[in-house]
Amino acid sequence: MKIGIIGLGLIGGSLGLDLRSLGHTVLGASQKESTCQTAKNIGAVDHARTDLESMPQSDLIFICTPIPYIIPTLQQLIPSLKPTTIVTDVGSVKTPIVQDCTALWSNFVGGHPMAGTAEQGINAAQFKLFVNRPYVITPTPESPAESVQILADLVSSIGADVYTQYSPQIHDQAVAWISHLPVMISASLIHACMSETDSHILEAAQKLASSGFASTSRVGGGNPELGVMMAKYNKEAILRSLRQYRQNLNDLINYIETENWSSLENTLEYTQQARPNFIDS
Amino acid sequence: MKIGIIGLGLIGGSLGLDLRSLGHTVLGASQKESTCQTAKNIGAVDHARTDLESMPQSDLIFICTPIPYIIPTLQQLIPSLKPTTIVTDVGSVKTPIVQDCTALWSNFVGGHPMAGTAEQGINAAQFKLFVNRPYVITPTPESPAESVQILADLVSSIGADVYTQYSPQIHDQAVAWISHLPVMISASLIHACMSETDSHILEAAQKLASSGFASTSRVGGGNPELGVMMAKYNKEAILRSLRQYRQNLNDLINYIETENWSSLENTLEYTQQARPNFIDS
Repeated sequence: MKIGIIGLGLIGGSLGLDLRSLGHTVLGASQKESTCQTAKNIGAVDHARTDLESMPQSDLIFICTPIPYIIPTLQQLIPSLKPTTIVTDVGSVKTPIVQDCTALWSNFVGGHPMAGTAEQGINAAQFKLFVNRPYVITPTPESPAESVQILADLVSSIGADVYTQYSPQIHDQAVAWISHLPVMISASLIHACMSETDSHILEAAQKLASSGFASTSRVGGGNPELGVMMAKYNKEAILRSLRQYRQNLNDLINYIETENWSSLENTLEYTQQARPNFIDS
Repeated sequence: MKIGIIGLGLIGGSLGLDLRSLGHTVLGASQKESTCQTAKNIGAVDHARTDLESMPQSDLIFICTPIPYIIPTLQQLIPSLKPTTIVTDVGSVKTPIVQDCTALWSNFVGGHPMAGTAEQGINAAQFKLFVNRPYVITPTPESPAESVQILADLVSSIGADVYTQYSPQIHDQAVAWISHLPVMISASLIHACMSETDSHILEAAQKLASSGFASTSRVGGGNPELGVMMAKYNKEAILRSLRQYRQNLNDLINYIETENWSSLENTLEYTQQARPNFIDS
């Protein structure tokens, strides 16, 4: 297959590495000439350009830009695309993107590979990034079934766990819970610790922070731009999750204030038992 | 040295393994005969009994019981101890323990090895558990300097990063920030997700939860009994941290509600930059 990839960062670059290794021809596009060059050097693309001129040759195009550029990129592509070209994206929010992109291009199928790392950019691209990681495809009732199947087969061929059963709305609320809410509560942890006004305590906290703090603060120390995008494009879902979270936190504070140890223990037993529903192993 | 270890769980058992490998004689005590037997079988102790009869032979005794049993255990030991015997504990809260234990036994030195794992019990004991992990020793102005040094040298010999400069109060507020607060906010994350009333969304969240959720929820899925002990014995410090945290969370919710994206971005940039102050690498 001839596959276009627009945006050669971690996700775009990693897709290119895997897809080329399976024999597909990968045509890349990035605004930066240096990124195009690196992508060629590491073998993530067969060819790369700083414009979209080669894209009309593609059978399927992955738009791997940051969220705000997905719709403008599609608009720019449309005049030169063949009707058979499937276009997909990799944005972490789906409702607003799928709605607008489907209106623009009926052969659009939204996607979300859940395979971020702490690193970004073409230099972070790696083979087999998607193996055993969720890759959500969010078709609408109008999405061409054949295009959905082609995309599903393709991401399945690079080892991802493919999900096609969730609507954009279900996807967005689900990722608000398990991806976007964690970023916000984790960032607030770091922020709260830094609010300590006693410099001896702050120094001790910084010296003694160990694996528990490292885990809980990990996603709160991530890419700020991505965090803002989540909140901006998934605002209602993330606020719904944050408000529910605040209620649960208040309950827990209340248990401690009133020394209601049995309710605290019940809650911690419940969360201990519930966690394996989300995390295997 | 002859070293007594009372309570042969993860910490007590792991201390025994390391200390014996350095040539010390380790006398163990556990309420359960089967635990004594396992400790002997895995080489964590030279001898083990279900009572404290062998403890008076020890030069130094680690009390590795759960927090509520530390003071009663010391009370039980005192009548038979030589005045030279150093007693220490491994409780994760220090102020109430150090206060009461020092009043009971002037040769008491509080300690806190920060080397928990998800596993518990003698079967989770392992060699080198303490290597490069913080081990806080919290002397008071009255603590015998020589005893503090003996304990510090001993835990240094098993590879721990030893800290002796923090008072029990500084320790307790510091661990409230970096250890106890994370447990509470992480548990609230799991609780909030489970509060989702739409079964399709909950199912999707459970299926799609990936590394970000796994990290952020890890300590909230831990031992409920330990969580309650933290809150119970470190109540004021943990409430102080929780209230500050709630304020930071409210700010962040407010930024999203009012679409104050620049403040949200500033916060996330701040937390990204601040995290390495706590976590090397």
